[in-house]
Amino acid sequence: PPGKKVLIVYAHQEPKSLNGSLKRVAVEELSKQGCSVTVSDLYAMQFEPRATRNDIVGCLHNSEEFNYGMETWEAYKRGGLSSDLLEEQKKVQEADLLIFQFPLYWFSMPAIMKGWMDRVLVQGFAHEFPNCYDSGLLQNKLALFSFTTGGSREMYAKGGISGDIRYLLWPMQHGIMHFCGVKVLAPHICFAPEYVSEEKRKEMLVTWAQRLKTLWKEEPIDCSPEWYFK
Amino acid sequence: PPGKKVLIVYAHQEPKSLNGSLKRVAVEELSKQGCSVTVSDLYAMQFEPRATRNDIVGCLHNSEEFNYGMETWEAYKRGGLSSDLLEEQKKVQEADLLIFQFPLYWFSMPAIMKGWMDRVLVQGFAHEFPNCYDSGLLQNKLALFSFTTGGSREMYAKGGISGDIRYLLWPMQHGIMHFCGVKVLAPHICFAPEYVSEEKRKEMLVTWAQRLKTLWKEEPIDCSPEWYFK
Repeated sequence: PPGKKVLIVYAHQEPKSLNGSLKRVAVEELSKQGCSVTVSDLYAMQFEPRATRNDIVGCLHNSEEFNYGMETWEAYKRGGLSSDLLEEQKKVQEADLLIFQFPLYWFSMPAIMKGWMDRVLVQGFAHEFPNCYDSGLLQNKLALFSFTTGGSREMYAKGGISGDIRYLLWPMQHGIMHFCGVKVLAPHICFAPEYVSEEKRKEMLVTWAQRLKTLWKEEPIDCSPEWYFK
Repeated sequence: PPGKKVLIVYAHQEPKSLNGSLKRVAVEELSKQGCSVTVSDLYAMQFEPRATRNDIVGCLHNSEEFNYGMETWEAYKRGGLSSDLLEEQKKVQEADLLIFQFPLYWFSMPAIMKGWMDRVLVQGFAHEFPNCYDSGLLQNKLALFSFTTGGSREMYAKGGISGDIRYLLWPMQHGIMHFCGVKVLAPHICFAPEYVSEEKRKEMLVTWAQRLKTLWKEEPIDCSPEWYFK
């Protein structure tokens, strides 16, 4: 709906890929609804995935023994995080909805996107013990993981060789987003697009556009172990 | 035992950290046993986590539309992967045991280590459909995930707020190592070292050294959904 803000965190090297098209469809459809859409195109930005001392501007809190979690927490509080992190945090802060668009790499997100999680969602900004899970600091936001797989729907079925696809959603949806207080919408999964016809791939884009039309009426999932492992 | 080769893939920024000490203890104990130990110290190497066109030397198979999985597969077959990947693959090829030593970041490994998985374990080298899982290409090797957590053992208990720690091992142990045909030893987990006494942290190092003494007699886990979600 008009006024809603969406951040799409996008990790694919090739604009012509299905992931690229899924991202474009989301920008178009959500813009058409009157949403304001921002894209973090991680490969195009050459986003840094490594969590290092460079993320802290100026002196360290404890230069004797470098502790990334502690140093970024302290740096956040004094406004001393590197500018690329501050920019991403500003986008997250403003967003009502975060969409993560990526190809599944090794049952998870590509390293460049994992680095976005590792570096952007620092303590003080996204959580601050005991403010985690339902009391995480990014409440009143929604997240949606939208991804493509190499394996087929059958491989990712319960009893399939790769196990229920929900098993691998636990670390991303519960361990990251729920931990920060973000409510999680059902994932959007395109199974094995490389092994289907061009026609089927077009259908995948139409299905995504259709879902986005009524996305704001969706209820978040119940992000408890039962959803994943029942 | 003498002659066994071990690769430790290590991801911590600080040598004085508990992860640094756990790595050192493993090098010492395994060397004492007569093993030949190699360490990939990812931060010290400034290991590149991003999967990009730079991983392929020379021309692309399809320069019209970049497909990382396909390009690295083709490059592997013609010996055209970048030299940092070839070096890591050589270490993996020679190893009988892979130890991954890291602090848990967001229910998973740090991005720099995820990038090692994304970039090193390419098709053709580690798997080649349908050679995956029990027929993966890295058979006759063992892997062990050794990591520290921020959360306590209670948080990671079944019914705890973060769920059974085994839930988050699924993508790493089954989705990556088992997929490549590697047998998985029980993980080694140091819970919340930042919140215990110096004395307790020393005990953690002793416990790890003790385990390593009889490591070669251990049986791999049964890497099926039951182990993780029963």
